[in-house]
Amino acid sequence: MTEPAAPRPKPRRARGLPDRRGADLAVERQLISRVSKVYEDWGFEPLETPAFEYADALGKFLPDQDRPNEGVFAFEDDEEWVALRYDLTAPLARFVAENFDALPKPYRRWAAGPVWRNEKPGPGRFREFWQCDADTVGSASPAADAEMIAMACAAYSAVGLADGQFQIKFSTRKLLDAVLEKIGVAADAYSTRLVVLRAIDKFDRLGVKGVEALLGAGRKDESGDFTKGAGLDAAQAKAVLDLVGAGKGTRAEVLNRLAEIGGEAAIAELRAIDAALSALNVSEAQAQIDPTIVRGLEYYTGAVFEGQLIGGDGVFGSIGGGGRYDDLVARFRGERIPATGFSIGVSRLAAALQSKQAAQSDGPVLVLVMDQERVADALAMADELRRAGVRAETYLGAAGMKAQLKYADKRAAPIAIIQGGDELAKGVVTLKDLKLGAKIAAGLGEDREAYAKAREQVQQQAPRAQLVAAVQQMLAR
Amino acid sequence: MTEPAAPRPKPRRARGLPDRRGADLAVERQLISRVSKVYEDWGFEPLETPAFEYADALGKFLPDQDRPNEGVFAFEDDEEWVALRYDLTAPLARFVAENFDALPKPYRRWAAGPVWRNEKPGPGRFREFWQCDADTVGSASPAADAEMIAMACAAYSAVGLADGQFQIKFSTRKLLDAVLEKIGVAADAYSTRLVVLRAIDKFDRLGVKGVEALLGAGRKDESGDFTKGAGLDAAQAKAVLDLVGAGKGTRAEVLNRLAEIGGEAAIAELRAIDAALSALNVSEAQAQIDPTIVRGLEYYTGAVFEGQLIGGDGVFGSIGGGGRYDDLVARFRGERIPATGFSIGVSRLAAALQSKQAAQSDGPVLVLVMDQERVADALAMADELRRAGVRAETYLGAAGMKAQLKYADKRAAPIAIIQGGDELAKGVVTLKDLKLGAKIAAGLGEDREAYAKAREQVQQQAPRAQLVAAVQQMLAR
Repeated sequence: MTEPAAPRPKPRRARGLPDRRGADLAVERQLISRVSKVYEDWGFEPLETPAFEYADALGKFLPDQDRPNEGVFAFEDDEEWVALRYDLTAPLARFVAENFDALPKPYRRWAAGPVWRNEKPGPGRFREFWQCDADTVGSASPAADAEMIAMACAAYSAVGLADGQFQIKFSTRKLLDAVLEKIGVAADAYSTRLVVLRAIDKFDRLGVKGVEALLGAGRKDESGDFTKGAGLDAAQAKAVLDLVGAGKGTRAEVLNRLAEIGGEAAIAELRAIDAALSALNVSEAQAQIDPTIVRGLEYYTGAVFEGQLIGGDGVFGSIGGGGRYDDLVARFRGERIPATGFSIGVSRLAAALQSKQAAQSDGPVLVLVMDQERVADALAMADELRRAGVRAETYLGAAGMKAQLKYADKRAAPIAIIQGGDELAKGVVTLKDLKLGAKIAAGLGEDREAYAKAREQVQQQAPRAQLVAAVQQMLAR
Repeated sequence: MTEPAAPRPKPRRARGLPDRRGADLAVERQLISRVSKVYEDWGFEPLETPAFEYADALGKFLPDQDRPNEGVFAFEDDEEWVALRYDLTAPLARFVAENFDALPKPYRRWAAGPVWRNEKPGPGRFREFWQCDADTVGSASPAADAEMIAMACAAYSAVGLADGQFQIKFSTRKLLDAVLEKIGVAADAYSTRLVVLRAIDKFDRLGVKGVEALLGAGRKDESGDFTKGAGLDAAQAKAVLDLVGAGKGTRAEVLNRLAEIGGEAAIAELRAIDAALSALNVSEAQAQIDPTIVRGLEYYTGAVFEGQLIGGDGVFGSIGGGGRYDDLVARFRGERIPATGFSIGVSRLAAALQSKQAAQSDGPVLVLVMDQERVADALAMADELRRAGVRAETYLGAAGMKAQLKYADKRAAPIAIIQGGDELAKGVVTLKDLKLGAKIAAGLGEDREAYAKAREQVQQQAPRAQLVAAVQQMLAR
């Protein structure tokens, strides 16, 4: 009895949605496990919220609001709009607002999970990717911001980045607010502030000239598309550019330079973060003040951070970021609940780490099946090995010995176990050291004696009763 | 500058979508980590596919096809319909079809992740829940089915279930196919077979009477809703009920009884699975043959399994299941690719385990802040502790000492560290053993001497330079 005939579907994925397998995925998982260990050590507890939320609960804070559905994947459920979460912060704000009375305050939580952005995918830019976040909700203290920076440093170290391979750059949006006030941009000029923020956010990519254009009338890109600017005059734009250009040198040097530009509250905040960073032993190389850092998401209200990977030739890309978002919970409750957090871009960091450390781990020991009538013997051997703590599998396809050894190779099996009729009669098994075999195949250099000895060692017999010990010995050599 | 005023959203979730935090979530995470360790030991490699797929690639195999969108959450993307995955098997079939030539065959993969069902939520029944699956694609061998059963047993043991607390029941859909053939239900009577399958699947809930009604004209439930039956006559229904009732006793006993009912291919398959289970040391208590097991998902073609939790008073509910789905990859490729798998229901198993083992783990050591001007000192203390491997956090709210100790209590902090002005002047810190304090508060019984001694031990001073050693000592006692 078969299902009624249907047109055969194509096996394909919607664009920008990756499959990840084997070693690639293992790197991501290990990374999340190490980062979350750091978060736990710092006193953050885990939280998992659903993949989708009411659209009004998530809010609209993405930089690309001109995309379909304003950058999110939305659909109707029970006649209300819901959307896949675009980050882990907006759902946290909903969670805190919903459970405010029951939570310890400050509430410190970490979370790891996929987020979805309905954006144009590109190389290394996916529409589903993982983030691993920590947030402190209910603390207005700059020490909480400093903790985020220090903890991010600890997390990057924990995943194997050495000092000098990463750096956290931080600033506060209050610096810009002070400059905007000074140059007479009205405090309620909401959209002008946003356009200025986004212009600065593109500093890395567009440089001074590009930002200057976006602060003024606007900018035409290579494709001819025109982006409307903030409409500042030359003097106003210069004041913003002076701020953006103030970040060179040690934290103390930058602070002194910024103090001249002004913004008392901003400077006090940065000084307090700097002092806390020193208490937390965060070096100048690990964390610098950089006023070009403003972050793209709209909800940040104060301190902002960005983690960058330093390649051989300078900065290599963003591997995390965050900041203070004192108004996000207030959207629900009215009352302001100060909060700050840091998000590590798991997929990006994993990709960066993979180029640094090609994780080539061994597969399981493979027990071959030489005779389908004796599959039970092979199952029992694999079972014995596993019970002794050795990863092992039985070949369960229908192919012959040659194809089985090819399979062992594809699985990176370190050892193949073979028991044909002859071995069975003698009560022995054959162990094939596939790693050593591969080494020999790759050439053992000019040493003929070593070569001959190695060849001898590749294949070896052991009494069936000694299987586990023989495998363990071979694995250990 | 603030965002333009918007109506204040309610902090709420769409129904059937749980938040999970703290210890509850930790139990789930630990469970996934232990189960996946078993899968890895058995030679399965990890795979992660995206949360949503083209709807035609997922196919329509859910039992509740009468629900909106046929049980899935669907939406349009680039003018094509996509849907959140309802299990981890349908995406695997798409992945295998898409990457067939590059994969080792058999392809053995495990996966853990959330799945979404657009069903009516209820107590313990969510619309988002986690599964942790293993699948062998490209093996027609009953040994592969037996491995699934044996591995599920190993996984349940690994998460802490003792023998007797769980059982795998298994059967094959080929048994029913043989009976249907014998009673003259045409081989192409696709929908009759499905109705019969789903009637049997409800055996647990409805008993013999209910199943009998569903095999015949139909059944009216308590609410008065009528479910149309398969339309079998009395003799035909009896044949099906004979099959359903054949499962009592050891695997050998059930096999002998089934052999009389017939279905050569089915019996041969079950015998082979039984032999392989014995080779894999799976006991009768761990795995039984039960012809009432058919599973709800439509894509199964042969062997089917179900993991059940055994409570004090018998069966407690399904904690996993799976089976053989030889036609799922063929949907894409035409060519049949035999496959079998097992899925552990993470959320359900975690809920069951939580009632068995209330995971009450300690929170981080809490460093109190007695003077906001000296927050750096507190940060430095927590940092020293963490660098020595002790989980520690600094209190970063604005509250006084009493509220901070309350916070420590909410966080299950084992120790509070206090350094007020007096302590600072003397160069010491005060350590408060909160666990011991809680024990005393709960009453130490009638032993007055022990009580007095314990009270003394709760609070203790140490030189600031000895902080780490003193904390480690207190944690160890």
